[in-house]
Amino acid sequence: MLNAFTLDTASALGAALPELRLKPAEQRYLEEPRGKWTGLPTYVAAPRTTEDVAAIIRFANTHKFGIQPYGGGTGLVGGQLTTKGPEPLILSLENMNAIRAIHSQENALIAEAGVTLETIHNAAADINRLFPLTYGSKGTAQIGAGLAVNSGGLNVLRYGMARDLCLGIEAVLPNGDILHGLKRLRKDNTGYDLRHLLIGSEGTLGIITAAALKLSPRPAHTATAFLAVNNPTAALDLLARTWDTAGEVISAFEILNSTGFHFLKEKFPDTRQPFETPPDWSVLVEIATPAGTDPQTILETVFAEAYEADLVTDGLIASSGQQADDFWTVRETIPLANRAIGAIASHDISLPLSHLAEFIDTTGKNLAKIAPVRINCFGHLGDGNLHYNVYPPAGKDRKDFAGVAAKISDRVHDNVVERGGSFSAEHGIGRLKTADLARYGDPAKLTAMRTLKNALDPNGILNPGVVIT
Amino acid sequence: MLNAFTLDTASALGAALPELRLKPAEQRYLEEPRGKWTGLPTYVAAPRTTEDVAAIIRFANTHKFGIQPYGGGTGLVGGQLTTKGPEPLILSLENMNAIRAIHSQENALIAEAGVTLETIHNAAADINRLFPLTYGSKGTAQIGAGLAVNSGGLNVLRYGMARDLCLGIEAVLPNGDILHGLKRLRKDNTGYDLRHLLIGSEGTLGIITAAALKLSPRPAHTATAFLAVNNPTAALDLLARTWDTAGEVISAFEILNSTGFHFLKEKFPDTRQPFETPPDWSVLVEIATPAGTDPQTILETVFAEAYEADLVTDGLIASSGQQADDFWTVRETIPLANRAIGAIASHDISLPLSHLAEFIDTTGKNLAKIAPVRINCFGHLGDGNLHYNVYPPAGKDRKDFAGVAAKISDRVHDNVVERGGSFSAEHGIGRLKTADLARYGDPAKLTAMRTLKNALDPNGILNPGVVIT
Repeated sequence: MLNAFTLDTASALGAALPELRLKPAEQRYLEEPRGKWTGLPTYVAAPRTTEDVAAIIRFANTHKFGIQPYGGGTGLVGGQLTTKGPEPLILSLENMNAIRAIHSQENALIAEAGVTLETIHNAAADINRLFPLTYGSKGTAQIGAGLAVNSGGLNVLRYGMARDLCLGIEAVLPNGDILHGLKRLRKDNTGYDLRHLLIGSEGTLGIITAAALKLSPRPAHTATAFLAVNNPTAALDLLARTWDTAGEVISAFEILNSTGFHFLKEKFPDTRQPFETPPDWSVLVEIATPAGTDPQTILETVFAEAYEADLVTDGLIASSGQQADDFWTVRETIPLANRAIGAIASHDISLPLSHLAEFIDTTGKNLAKIAPVRINCFGHLGDGNLHYNVYPPAGKDRKDFAGVAAKISDRVHDNVVERGGSFSAEHGIGRLKTADLARYGDPAKLTAMRTLKNALDPNGILNPGVVIT
Repeated sequence: MLNAFTLDTASALGAALPELRLKPAEQRYLEEPRGKWTGLPTYVAAPRTTEDVAAIIRFANTHKFGIQPYGGGTGLVGGQLTTKGPEPLILSLENMNAIRAIHSQENALIAEAGVTLETIHNAAADINRLFPLTYGSKGTAQIGAGLAVNSGGLNVLRYGMARDLCLGIEAVLPNGDILHGLKRLRKDNTGYDLRHLLIGSEGTLGIITAAALKLSPRPAHTATAFLAVNNPTAALDLLARTWDTAGEVISAFEILNSTGFHFLKEKFPDTRQPFETPPDWSVLVEIATPAGTDPQTILETVFAEAYEADLVTDGLIASSGQQADDFWTVRETIPLANRAIGAIASHDISLPLSHLAEFIDTTGKNLAKIAPVRINCFGHLGDGNLHYNVYPPAGKDRKDFAGVAAKISDRVHDNVVERGGSFSAEHGIGRLKTADLARYGDPAKLTAMRTLKNALDPNGILNPGVVIT
């Protein structure tokens, strides 16, 4: 059992590392985006160096208190705050915010954990390269935390998850050792891949302090379309056709349903919507090509053929960068509209593509039997990743449906897992889904995870209560 | 300390699992491609099911003998045979050789560990997809072992290493538990990534029995060129230019030096060579594009501009599939010519691209001071991966240089590590490089590796003596 991080511990740590200037945690460290949880009041350390992070971790092992790692605070599964048990020390990476080096010949960049995605995007753009990891919170989300949770976002179809964009990491292990792994190599088979073990461990196996990131060529041309499709099956057919025509240059293939457009109209009426009447289902497609290939032509061909084949009923190909931005604003504002409406239950799921359409159909019917809910099912179709969010009927309060929330989530997750899918596609486990992991996880995997956690962090100091409890 | 796998153990295991039909190991299980080591005589089990693999592992824990995993036997670092210590049981995956399923809509395929790369290439081609993991031994090398060692090869620049092509694995863990992880998902953030921990662990943390593999769109057009360049710096400049022009559609960017062509002429005189007089340095470039883009034009542009800029002095763009195949035959036959000549020391190294040219220059000078050696430095320039092989002067025997072999390797590896490179880029550690790992490895990483190995395999039964000893 861990000890609480008390005023006495704070004094002792402050005496040992005076440059830390420990502070009581402001409110912002104790909140999270969906307002589901409140963190316990405690202290924040925001070290400036990897050595100081290591010193804090060693101190925590001696004094047996928990460490709550903290990045941009944008996580959606409560991995960034401690709601019960002994108070931890919050370890914020915000002051480790330097881009240490840019290696343009190697298409690589070294960023400290606290650098935001947007800052990295800009640094890559400055050398005519692309760092493709992006999502709505890019201005706040930090790369260290993004790697800790293996975040996904809008460009996974083409460029992969956070882990796929990372060549190496520097990290502090639970015993306080500094892992010096900032290699910028494409090939390095020298022992177990601790990088991939720490990435996605949500701060429970180590604190990532810096990363060597892989940059991509910056596409010369981009074309964007919003196409109304008949149903999810048609959307998948369209994806397959686009894939056959455009291959790897599809940057994004998002699916949206009409519920999202209605929410948007209600909560963000000034957002310019692409369709007069929101179609039941639509897709937002982005194709980005190197010089010499015209993505607009590719999209026009795909659109024409799909229209001919009765997959697509209507659509717009952006004729300007402004119109393309407007399309993406729709996509990125829908999650905000969702929050303003207030979900009974949200689900970040993925499915094998061949089961996806049937899942949507069956699950909609299943939930209708539980309650007269509204479903906003949207997301990264190209990755099989749906944000399957469930809302009260119009005019009703979600509080009235609190009693069926667990039943709804269980049904959604049961249906996902039965079809070989994942109950957490990109948001991770955090505190929200520890019970789901225990319920749906492969027993062999759970046993091995526990063995690894106990071996590397025998005192259980790193992000206690997250992932495995 | 482990027990030997004796006739008595064989009888007991045979009685427990009669369908295994254990056999004394034929010679082929006790050899490896470079003839450096001979395996201890012992028995071979070639189970047909994952359950039988699990039963063998559980039995090994009870009787405390070592398991020597065995794939296609093509590894170059001795990971596939046991040369000393108590005799292990050889566990060959050759009978687990089914492609269990092909999911064309999902661009995924499920293969058992014993399926060869070539069989997977063909299965992917049958549905107009590409499985890009390829290297010279593709007809023999098995996917399970390829993942166990995280193999690389010719297409890493574009498609990544073996680990990047794997969506999920089924494996038997050291305690005999079966990890059911054959997910076909692009996104799945549900706990620690055991897949990536096992991949690259060289059979020391688990036996991969099947894998869900990611397929890519099959490029519609391919263009191939052999270009003579002034020196490695020019080759790197050319790579950067090609990257700027062609972006992600560069499939391969190999560097060769004249020594390789001379060896080829000596040992495989019938191989059609691209240049009348082998240039000191040349590159083999392959560009492969989706429909609608002409890779030949891209290569012609790159060639013309590079010629103009004095980077390229001569070159050929293949005008037929046959000529392109001839180019690749040259590249793939050079390693065979190398073996026929017989190296004093071979090195599979990688370097940050910005250090690569200087490394080649400096190391050549360093080695000349040790002995009058010939150097065949070639490899996957796009990945910063060189096969840096050192040979006796013409007419001399490598045996006469046995005394300086270690000195040569130490100098090469010291130079690599000083420049942030890797002393094992794609072949792994095996038995060959355990001392290098101990010498050059990050202490924090080594400690963590040992902790992980002891935690997951407390009896040390899986591939004892490999990676960490």
